[in-house]
Amino acid sequence: MIAIDWGTTHLRAYRLDDAGAIVSRRSQPKGIMAISGGDFAAALDEITRDWHDAADREVVMSGMIGNRQGWVEVPYVSCPAALRDLADAVRAAPTDGARDVLICPGLVSRDADGVPDVMRGEEVQIFGALSISTTTTATVLLPGTHSKHAAVTNGSITGFVTHMTGEVFALLSDHSILGRLMAPRRVDLGSFDAGLDRARHRNGLLHHIFGVRTRMLMNELDAASLPDYLSGILIGHEIASAAISPPAIVVGEPDLGALYRRALDHIGIGAELIESDAATTRGLHAVAELRRKTRP
Amino acid sequence: MIAIDWGTTHLRAYRLDDAGAIVSRRSQPKGIMAISGGDFAAALDEITRDWHDAADREVVMSGMIGNRQGWVEVPYVSCPAALRDLADAVRAAPTDGARDVLICPGLVSRDADGVPDVMRGEEVQIFGALSISTTTTATVLLPGTHSKHAAVTNGSITGFVTHMTGEVFALLSDHSILGRLMAPRRVDLGSFDAGLDRARHRNGLLHHIFGVRTRMLMNELDAASLPDYLSGILIGHEIASAAISPPAIVVGEPDLGALYRRALDHIGIGAELIESDAATTRGLHAVAELRRKTRP
Repeated sequence: MIAIDWGTTHLRAYRLDDAGAIVSRRSQPKGIMAISGGDFAAALDEITRDWHDAADREVVMSGMIGNRQGWVEVPYVSCPAALRDLADAVRAAPTDGARDVLICPGLVSRDADGVPDVMRGEEVQIFGALSISTTTTATVLLPGTHSKHAAVTNGSITGFVTHMTGEVFALLSDHSILGRLMAPRRVDLGSFDAGLDRARHRNGLLHHIFGVRTRMLMNELDAASLPDYLSGILIGHEIASAAISPPAIVVGEPDLGALYRRALDHIGIGAELIESDAATTRGLHAVAELRRKTRP
Repeated sequence: MIAIDWGTTHLRAYRLDDAGAIVSRRSQPKGIMAISGGDFAAALDEITRDWHDAADREVVMSGMIGNRQGWVEVPYVSCPAALRDLADAVRAAPTDGARDVLICPGLVSRDADGVPDVMRGEEVQIFGALSISTTTTATVLLPGTHSKHAAVTNGSITGFVTHMTGEVFALLSDHSILGRLMAPRRVDLGSFDAGLDRARHRNGLLHHIFGVRTRMLMNELDAASLPDYLSGILIGHEIASAAISPPAIVVGEPDLGALYRRALDHIGIGAELIESDAATTRGLHAVAELRRKTRP
């Protein structure tokens, strides 16, 4: 089968063997907003052109491709949600019949104060990660532009919250007075840790980020260390503001995942790190398996 | 005399009578970064061209004009600092002799956790505001791109912290996924208050701002109310994270100052509102008076 994580900015395609292992993978900056005329079928053909055989008739997708602006809108499923709920809500995309394209729904939740939250794509990664991990009750963190923290009990996602950590980091680095002081990042885990500590001090996030500027002006930090210091402040605030119940699982790219694991370790929480690609493909493979079992 | 607040983006000039009252005022988007070749004398001549008489020989300035990139660098004065400390540290700018140009220093402080903080221009406004207010012990808030909270005891600034509230609001409105959803602001104080309340909930700022998106997607807020809701969240976090000891004085433009006063009132702190122009000119006039008294 072919598994695809199709987001706003990127398309990630994986060819899987019958056991769900990755045989081949491709990534292109062809998010749903970049597909001219919304011709998703043509974009799919192009990225999978030379992956032709009978088994590849089956394509299962997750991510923003199921959004209103995607191929076909797949309504959000409410939490608590188990893998079975996800599989039941999958919808077929209109195709010319050469392939069966199934698109997974996203999830909607309300936080403890009643404010809604949404995800599309991460829910599949969460179920994939749970199938890899030895635990079925955990807090799953998915760092990124919009970082997600999901509470999972007995394999069911009971709720989640989003933190705009990655987007705020990019905004401050690219467009703010802080970014103008920064040199290209030189990995400096000491400054990252200093940022984590800073996040636990008084006066809040909006004050702490100004310290990136003043500590540089006072020669306490150098320009190439500012990105890691800022990263530590933001990730530190994300972690400190969340009530994370161990065990924790971090699903992400190796570099960013390692930073999150370090941030959790900093407050005494050990975390298992699972790569995004593995989580995505195991999750989409599990959805396909469940669909097959229920096929008449 | 002529009083000038010369910042990074704007130049604000005021002609004052002997008592310090504003006779005339001008503002131009000619911050220190916009002065070609650093010819500050020519820029000063241009904005004050038709203000010619003997009394106008005396020009007193505050703001980034005293920074390393300004006309002459005036080193920061350390807190605690009284008006007298500010006046003692003033430096003369090099001129052709037709005028006496004095530039005020900025202040440097360390927050409770030892991280440095700086201001240039706000310290003059604080002393100006104190000369207008009936109190000499207060928390003075100066909202803006970089919002300042200063602790003042018996007329002396004992310390201060900066919050990047205005800059983060602009970044999120202009460059983020939230901004793309926003319609032009329609004043909606109910949404502003909802943002203030949201800031007191769990999960932190990086989560709360994502709610601007999800509450719009779920039709709980409309596009024109999003700016006030976001503003409430950010100002609410700024206020909630600071330990504000009453009485409070807000020094700012009328619209933004009124929002801050509303935010303080929301947590039971009454605040006096003093306009920026009045605070700047009263402060610069007081510096000039002190300088005159100590002249041989």
